[in-house]
Amino acid sequence: MKNSIGTSVILTLAGESHGSMLCAILDGLAPGIPVDEQFIASRLALRRPKGPADTARREKDAFSIVSGVFEGRTTGAPITILIPNEDVRSADYERTHALARPSHADYAAHIKYGGCEDWRGGGHFSGRVTAGIVAAGAIAAAALEAKGISIGTHILECAGVKDTPFNPTDTSEQVRSLQGMDFPVLSPVREAMEERILAAKGELDSVGGIVQTAVCGLPAGVGEPWFSSVEGVLANALFSIGGIKGVEFGSGFALASMKGSQANDAYSVSGGKVLTKTNHSGGVNGGISNGMPLIFSAVVKPTPSIARPQDSVDMNTGEAAQLTITGRHDPAIVRRVCIVVSSLVAIVLCDLLALRFGTDYLK
Amino acid sequence: MKNSIGTSVILTLAGESHGSMLCAILDGLAPGIPVDEQFIASRLALRRPKGPADTARREKDAFSIVSGVFEGRTTGAPITILIPNEDVRSADYERTHALARPSHADYAAHIKYGGCEDWRGGGHFSGRVTAGIVAAGAIAAAALEAKGISIGTHILECAGVKDTPFNPTDTSEQVRSLQGMDFPVLSPVREAMEERILAAKGELDSVGGIVQTAVCGLPAGVGEPWFSSVEGVLANALFSIGGIKGVEFGSGFALASMKGSQANDAYSVSGGKVLTKTNHSGGVNGGISNGMPLIFSAVVKPTPSIARPQDSVDMNTGEAAQLTITGRHDPAIVRRVCIVVSSLVAIVLCDLLALRFGTDYLK
Amino acid sequence: MKNSIGTSVILTLAGESHGSMLCAILDGLAPGIPVDEQFIASRLALRRPKGPADTARREKDAFSIVSGVFEGRTTGAPITILIPNEDVRSADYERTHALARPSHADYAAHIKYGGCEDWRGGGHFSGRVTAGIVAAGAIAAAALEAKGISIGTHILECAGVKDTPFNPTDTSEQVRSLQGMDFPVLSPVREAMEERILAAKGELDSVGGIVQTAVCGLPAGVGEPWFSSVEGVLANALFSIGGIKGVEFGSGFALASMKGSQANDAYSVSGGKVLTKTNHSGGVNGGISNGMPLIFSAVVKPTPSIARPQDSVDMNTGEAAQLTITGRHDPAIVRRVCIVVSSLVAIVLCDLLALRFGTDYLK
Amino acid sequence: MKNSIGTSVILTLAGESHGSMLCAILDGLAPGIPVDEQFIASRLALRRPKGPADTARREKDAFSIVSGVFEGRTTGAPITILIPNEDVRSADYERTHALARPSHADYAAHIKYGGCEDWRGGGHFSGRVTAGIVAAGAIAAAALEAKGISIGTHILECAGVKDTPFNPTDTSEQVRSLQGMDFPVLSPVREAMEERILAAKGELDSVGGIVQTAVCGLPAGVGEPWFSSVEGVLANALFSIGGIKGVEFGSGFALASMKGSQANDAYSVSGGKVLTKTNHSGGVNGGISNGMPLIFSAVVKPTPSIARPQDSVDMNTGEAAQLTITGRHDPAIVRRVCIVVSSLVAIVLCDLLALRFGTDYLK
Repeated sequence: MKNSIGTSVILTLAGESHGSMLCAILDGLAPGIPVDEQFIASRLALRRPKGPADTARREKDAFSIVSGVFEGRTTGAPITILIPNEDVRSADYERTHALARPSHADYAAHIKYGGCEDWRGGGHFSGRVTAGIVAAGAIAAAALEAKGISIGTHILECAGVKDTPFNPTDTSEQVRSLQGMDFPVLSPVREAMEERILAAKGELDSVGGIVQTAVCGLPAGVGEPWFSSVEGVLANALFSIGGIKGVEFGSGFALASMKGSQANDAYSVSGGKVLTKTNHSGGVNGGISNGMPLIFSAVVKPTPSIARPQDSVDMNTGEAAQLTITGRHDPAIVRRVCIVVSSLVAIVLCDLLALRFGTDYLK
Repeated sequence: MKNSIGTSVILTLAGESHGSMLCAILDGLAPGIPVDEQFIASRLALRRPKGPADTARREKDAFSIVSGVFEGRTTGAPITILIPNEDVRSADYERTHALARPSHADYAAHIKYGGCEDWRGGGHFSGRVTAGIVAAGAIAAAALEAKGISIGTHILECAGVKDTPFNPTDTSEQVRSLQGMDFPVLSPVREAMEERILAAKGELDSVGGIVQTAVCGLPAGVGEPWFSSVEGVLANALFSIGGIKGVEFGSGFALASMKGSQANDAYSVSGGKVLTKTNHSGGVNGGISNGMPLIFSAVVKPTPSIARPQDSVDMNTGEAAQLTITGRHDPAIVRRVCIVVSSLVAIVLCDLLALRFGTDYLK
Repeated sequence: MKNSIGTSVILTLAGESHGSMLCAILDGLAPGIPVDEQFIASRLALRRPKGPADTARREKDAFSIVSGVFEGRTTGAPITILIPNEDVRSADYERTHALARPSHADYAAHIKYGGCEDWRGGGHFSGRVTAGIVAAGAIAAAALEAKGISIGTHILECAGVKDTPFNPTDTSEQVRSLQGMDFPVLSPVREAMEERILAAKGELDSVGGIVQTAVCGLPAGVGEPWFSSVEGVLANALFSIGGIKGVEFGSGFALASMKGSQANDAYSVSGGKVLTKTNHSGGVNGGISNGMPLIFSAVVKPTPSIARPQDSVDMNTGEAAQLTITGRHDPAIVRRVCIVVSSLVAIVLCDLLALRFGTDYLK
Repeated sequence: MKNSIGTSVILTLAGESHGSMLCAILDGLAPGIPVDEQFIASRLALRRPKGPADTARREKDAFSIVSGVFEGRTTGAPITILIPNEDVRSADYERTHALARPSHADYAAHIKYGGCEDWRGGGHFSGRVTAGIVAAGAIAAAALEAKGISIGTHILECAGVKDTPFNPTDTSEQVRSLQGMDFPVLSPVREAMEERILAAKGELDSVGGIVQTAVCGLPAGVGEPWFSSVEGVLANALFSIGGIKGVEFGSGFALASMKGSQANDAYSVSGGKVLTKTNHSGGVNGGISNGMPLIFSAVVKPTPSIARPQDSVDMNTGEAAQLTITGRHDPAIVRRVCIVVSSLVAIVLCDLLALRFGTDYLK
């Protein structure tokens, strides 16, 4: 599939940065799930650029749901969400659109689409398209919450400043604390992070970071051993989010320098419940959820749009060229990525749960 | 899909560690591709345990191809490869199979399959199943080679010993040097790594590591922007390989502490060819290959089977229990994972290429 | 997949009969295909109710394309088409929506969606949703025409009146004659058919019929032997069109009483081209196109909405009830089904061709 | 997908008529389902050629299950079934394999696979491959029976002789009567049918027919409105069975000449259960099962292998040629198709049920 993800619960994304609107279709969600437009709006607000540390583009995200919801609840039919684009300034792109922006999709897209791609604002590759993920994900996240499954994402690291990681074996309070937070961190590092982001912006530069997600309440026994592992399905989803270049579960890359005796999660039984004492596995063994918190991190590269002159190529002539990107850009997207990740994860988990327990599971 | 991966070129895996045989079906490969059984055997040999640093289980991997190949070439019909299991010792598992092995799939599988799973040797979760990936991948890899696309994987790190990483912008010689290498490294670190592995074994412990893969010759323009990105599709595949808990492309997690001005891959034009001067992106932008070497790493956790006593749970009674794993196990699987990764990547790339350029592309 | 069809070229349908609008997303079409909004409008006009033989609902079908098209051509990104609903009269349904309409989806939907379904005008089950198929199919059909592949559908039978069938071995002129025809027949049977339709309407009844489709110019070698046969993929698509209850290829059900010596299509060679002298196979052997015209028929049941009293069930109480359907309905939909079939077939063929020859085939 | 069908329960078929063996993998079936090898053997026996009315090829179908079954029950892992080919006589094909057999897949396959296809006995296109469907389907059918869902297929028509059709609203006894029947008919027409088959054989000719299937006990609410309708999914499956060229549900093509007042299935309530008084819809409305018996028919063309001289084409030279097919062939396959249809339907229904109610539904 292209621009679609899922088997039983399926998200399809369409739209371009500077087109008239974005479209997200969320199909296969159980019927009867309450749809709270205010909650959706509040999640979109978390993704929206806000202060000097974000792009100057200002979108109202005045979405409308035009199908699949009736009398305030899902019907079981596909849910179509439209999000108009309003604050569009294509002129920024007109002069230079033949010049491939380094570490953007421009050149790869040019080869793939033969020059027919919509280059205005990055077109279908734009982070703007993630607004559809957030809107659709809000419905999914609310449905999961109603079943006791909570998702939270925070900025684990940004521009060298580190937040406290999730407590691997007990995340529920931390996850709760992140709900509705527009600069989601678990310790008082916001100021330091914002300072560094603005410093980079001042240097016409940008910064990256790491986001970390925890899911609590996910039942054990979800996922498949080969090729639909919880890790694989989530990673496939996450790598679609612009700028994500690495995904790790549990202790992730740190496992490379651990011994088995350190890395293994010993079992304990508490109140009849099977737990593990540590959670280096991130809640997944053999591709299948084990009932412990699902924990993973994703690295977000620094925004490639920087205002310094860069070596480029003119895609029309094939010749080397110098490019200075103008336009409005985020010096860091890591804050805004958090809600996108949580939203996309909500949709993927709805899919895994529906496959495992049937389409009415979230009803 | 379950136990299957791909859209146009599809791999399906079946079989258990101690069943009579493994089965891999590779479907959708172009007709007319030469199938060299000796080459397949040589690739299986790379995966096979060998010395004291590997498990003592010895399998001949005497595979047979029972469909899809006629007069030495692929027919276009599904290729079925059977690999008998021979050196099976289920007795090792009989006494303790109700005790969940820490950081193994046992407990998650028990919840998912309700106790019906084949527990002998890890059943369908066993690394033994990857023999099918290697056999099928050998056919795919040879087809890619014939089109100038080469894949190589080396041990970037094992038990704290580090190998030279790939040169990000020019990997072809390094990739070539790895072909047929049974301990694939780019610098003389084999001895140091093996020493540490044996030391861990001596301590009844195990070690992990990182494997790094490069693909050279992949054309630009392959992959999709959303949900079938080159990164996402490969990551989904890789996370199925037992023990892999993280995947990163290009500079991966190191991008978190870089600035945009450092991380961006500036373009250059050389002999009419568009290149990038660096390759922090790992050959993919916006989910689509950009013509530079595709480079990614995966972390492999330490083998969870260690001979020390561990806290477990009796899955029949739900009570805490002590487990000492006996049986034959690898103190490190990182060496053997290399050929599995290269093989799986070959299959996934055949799929992406067939989707992009048609089913006859590799003919 | 649900509400989506295709592997490389994918159509997704959303929207309800009385919702604010319909949405169709066509993804995976090659970039660079000209999109002619007037041609789309002309195809939508063919589907639109017109005279007394159709429903009295009048829709302008004032569609808008909000993504995937740039400067008049496809970009390769998903194409979103929105079609507002305007002439909506939900009051017709309000009083009786708990009463299952015989041979409609109401009861089956009620069980599936637990009463959450949008019952206004049949909701997502309505024939109104096929407007999205026609709009998207117009783009696909034009792309196929540009490659010499033409599709035509006519009313082979309606209310007992029979049209001339396609000449099985040479359909190109007949197919051409059908383009743009709003009552598509190959012989002068329109008047007789319309008479019978109006007669049925006068009796508060409805009639059905058979539509027959021919595709000329489809290259040989498309389709798969098992589970993605040309017949199977097309039939799966066709059975989604409301009222279609049977699909046959070539001589279809008439083959039951033929002998092999009559049914076999003997080969002939003409001008270096391999042809068959007859075409009882309908252009497909072993699931794969053979280069002859692709010919198939589908039966359309009489419209289930009739104005006579019928035995129903009250889905809220579970008790028997009498229902007299009011509202605006087609006494026959067979005319309007023709363009829907041609449009859906165009999309499915684009998918099969892209899978076989790559995503740029229709460029 | 190619050679695979299903979303949650998936069948994959591999193997050729004259290869060493066939392979069927059935994945996704719930764990804990009893697997009775004798029952599988008895179903394979129903498919096996027997008397003079069938081909002279005699296969023992000595299958073995090499994965996915442990201690007599499914494990939830993929089930691999191998069926050796024994009575192979490729010499029959050697002399003439460049000559396309009329109405066989030879020519279409030649174009698709470029001459690399295995031509011995029809290769992967052979009806022999359906043995894998029957073996896998036996496990699925037994699982369905345990949930009260029964499937039966009979020869509705063969060579002009007609059997009694299913009673549309009450099929359970008729379905039961067909279990284990090797010439499945509902009335005493066996002799007449066999006579006509043998007469055709005597004339070096072949005959076709119609098979009709009923499923009783299928719950309402299964299937999707668009593109995964019960009709569409089943038709896609059925069209893969060699020789099937038409599929109709309920009254099928007869609906073309009915009025709405005749074709509509009025509701009745009996013992709190919602039923319909007639079943012209064949148990499906809007693509979703309605709780009535699922009834459909498929036409089977006369076997294309007949011993008379036929006009062919030499695929190597492109020139016209005369072909007289030798070898062993069925003068009619309609009897043997019955169990294949029932088996394939069982697998497809397991998939639809697992998607709707979760993977443990059949446990």
